[in-house]
Amino acid sequence: MNRQALIHQIKSKGTYLCVGLDTDPEKIPESLLDHPDSIYEFNRQIIDATMDHCVSYKINTAFYEAMGARGWEIMERTIAHIPATHLIIADAKRGDIGNTSAQYAKAFFATMKADAITVAPYMGEDSIRPFLEYPDKWTIVLGLTSNKGAADFELQDSGGQKLYERVLETVSRWGSPENLMFVVGATQADEFLNIRKLVPDHFLLVPGVGAQGGSLAEISAKAMNKDIGLLVNASRAVIYASSGADFADQARQAAAAYHDEMRQYLNGF
Amino acid sequence: MNRQALIHQIKSKGTYLCVGLDTDPEKIPESLLDHPDSIYEFNRQIIDATMDHCVSYKINTAFYEAMGARGWEIMERTIAHIPATHLIIADAKRGDIGNTSAQYAKAFFATMKADAITVAPYMGEDSIRPFLEYPDKWTIVLGLTSNKGAADFELQDSGGQKLYERVLETVSRWGSPENLMFVVGATQADEFLNIRKLVPDHFLLVPGVGAQGGSLAEISAKAMNKDIGLLVNASRAVIYASSGADFADQARQAAAAYHDEMRQYLNGF
Repeated sequence: MNRQALIHQIKSKGTYLCVGLDTDPEKIPESLLDHPDSIYEFNRQIIDATMDHCVSYKINTAFYEAMGARGWEIMERTIAHIPATHLIIADAKRGDIGNTSAQYAKAFFATMKADAITVAPYMGEDSIRPFLEYPDKWTIVLGLTSNKGAADFELQDSGGQKLYERVLETVSRWGSPENLMFVVGATQADEFLNIRKLVPDHFLLVPGVGAQGGSLAEISAKAMNKDIGLLVNASRAVIYASSGADFADQARQAAAAYHDEMRQYLNGF
Repeated sequence: MNRQALIHQIKSKGTYLCVGLDTDPEKIPESLLDHPDSIYEFNRQIIDATMDHCVSYKINTAFYEAMGARGWEIMERTIAHIPATHLIIADAKRGDIGNTSAQYAKAFFATMKADAITVAPYMGEDSIRPFLEYPDKWTIVLGLTSNKGAADFELQDSGGQKLYERVLETVSRWGSPENLMFVVGATQADEFLNIRKLVPDHFLLVPGVGAQGGSLAEISAKAMNKDIGLLVNASRAVIYASSGADFADQARQAAAAYHDEMRQYLNGF
């Protein structure tokens, strides 16, 4: 899905919500436990219930890998179930030397058919380039993350600027707003105005609202650009809105609440 | 496998070679192409041929993920075939917020039964801690990598030191030489003396000899510590030593040549 199509989806639906499928076998509702394919069935019901309220799904690969090869197979079928109208993000945080990153790009873009992948910047340009070379695919590089550990390196000085600022500045030269986004955590609201000076045109993928405590209102006010430029992810707050038999309906309502709020902030687009 | 057992293996065999199973379906010898399970069969023959000459195998997850769920299944069976005498490294370069890193730790330590995993440091302490919490398992954090992109961030200034130096110094406080190693590329020989000042006791996993051009002699002279403290990885130079029907035998000879050289450098232990 290219930039124009993504912006069209956001404007026409009035939402920039991404729903994170961090599906944990230990949190599957009791009503599904007897289902022979319970993880996939959970995902399928969540997707069907929330698709009118979001423009993207983010698959957190860790939760599937914890199940081994079976988890990968569920991840593949889950992606196949997501409609083409929605941007599919593999939240995989990959990155390695060039010939290995090329294999990761193949894994997620060609084999798994995701539209986007999250990538860690530590190893530099040749670890990121192979992802950027796929047409109509997105590379989403970690900028400033939502966790406490962001203070350990990302926020440290790097030659007169913060490391994450150097990452945004440097990596933005390797791609364009057509194929490159950055991850910026919702808990980092103080930094958003600064971030928009460094990368005014790029889309930002913003996790950390809901369970991690970031404010949707504040992020939207500070980080939206002329093309919206925001995908805000909620995972646990949507998919685990209820642990009962009504989990899908409650997930729909949680996603609809974000949608309603986002529609206000999109007023004027 | 704990530190004492690893050191015992190295001393008793006279080798600190790690063989990297970066198995690429496009490089499988013609003689195996008709085999119904050619990738696993290639790995099995490589392992059987090289095990006397190495103390560790490193599985590069990217090459398996490029095959999708089937690749994960092959990775699991390959790991099951590696004898308990050998340290099994999942070269996965993972790292995410705490609850997600906990899932990656589960994936590679519990489900896949690897002894060690490579982890990227960008996201800081809570992205690394969950791996360190597994007893008798190893977390191998990226320090200074072998690729050209190391110059983009790792070698940049970070408050008066280089970023990779900050990473070594900071991360070494989170674990101990009993559960933490660092990746340092063989192409970075100029930095090894400095690295040993920062982390005198930790094992270093050193990729980049062979195809990437690093010198085994130089690394061994500069980076060995009183407990050896080195695992040197060769991937392509061993597993693709021949593309003919003699691939396993040629791999054995390539591994044996490293073994012979390492035995000299271990003289005195």
